[in-house]
Amino acid sequence: MNAGLIEAVGAVAAVLTTLSFLPQTVRVLRTRDTAAISLTMYAMFTLGLCLWGIYGVLTRQWPVILANLFTLAFALIILGMKIREVLSRKSD
Amino acid sequence: MNAGLIEAVGAVAAVLTTLSFLPQTVRVLRTRDTAAISLTMYAMFTLGLCLWGIYGVLTRQWPVILANLFTLAFALIILGMKIREVLSRKSD
Repeated sequence: MNAGLIEAVGAVAAVLTTLSFLPQTVRVLRTRDTAAISLTMYAMFTLGLCLWGIYGVLTRQWPVILANLFTLAFALIILGMKIREVLSRKSD
Repeated sequence: MNAGLIEAVGAVAAVLTTLSFLPQTVRVLRTRDTAAISLTMYAMFTLGLCLWGIYGVLTRQWPVILANLFTLAFALIILGMKIREVLSRKSD
């Protein structure tokens, strides 16, 4: 198979999985509702994204660094809003 | 830097980002609550994971195929539960 086409499949895959966190981020910021969101998921996910970023730096792969930085930005907002909800519940 | 250590960072990153969807899946199955979950996110995300899987097959990268198959299984359950919620809301 054409190498350019294979890279295109990978690029579309990366854009989709990265940008998929944008609608979730917008939804959480708009509704302030994070009840159904798993704190454990976003804690593990952000830690994993940081390690992916480090892996990208160590292997000098710019697409890996960039995709993970974008996803990390979204994941940090969702995680922050979830922590906010958990803390406000405790202070009830 | 040691190549084995770099690969280890990548492996831990892959395990963390893949397994992070397990607690979200468990939460959604247990609580049946998907109100705060974005349908658009999981629609884009599952499509992206399918493309990542195809990319893995085309480039013969077993770790890419495996990690994406696991994440896809979790994402499909979350997406299915979300679609169930949206459909039941419409039939109210």
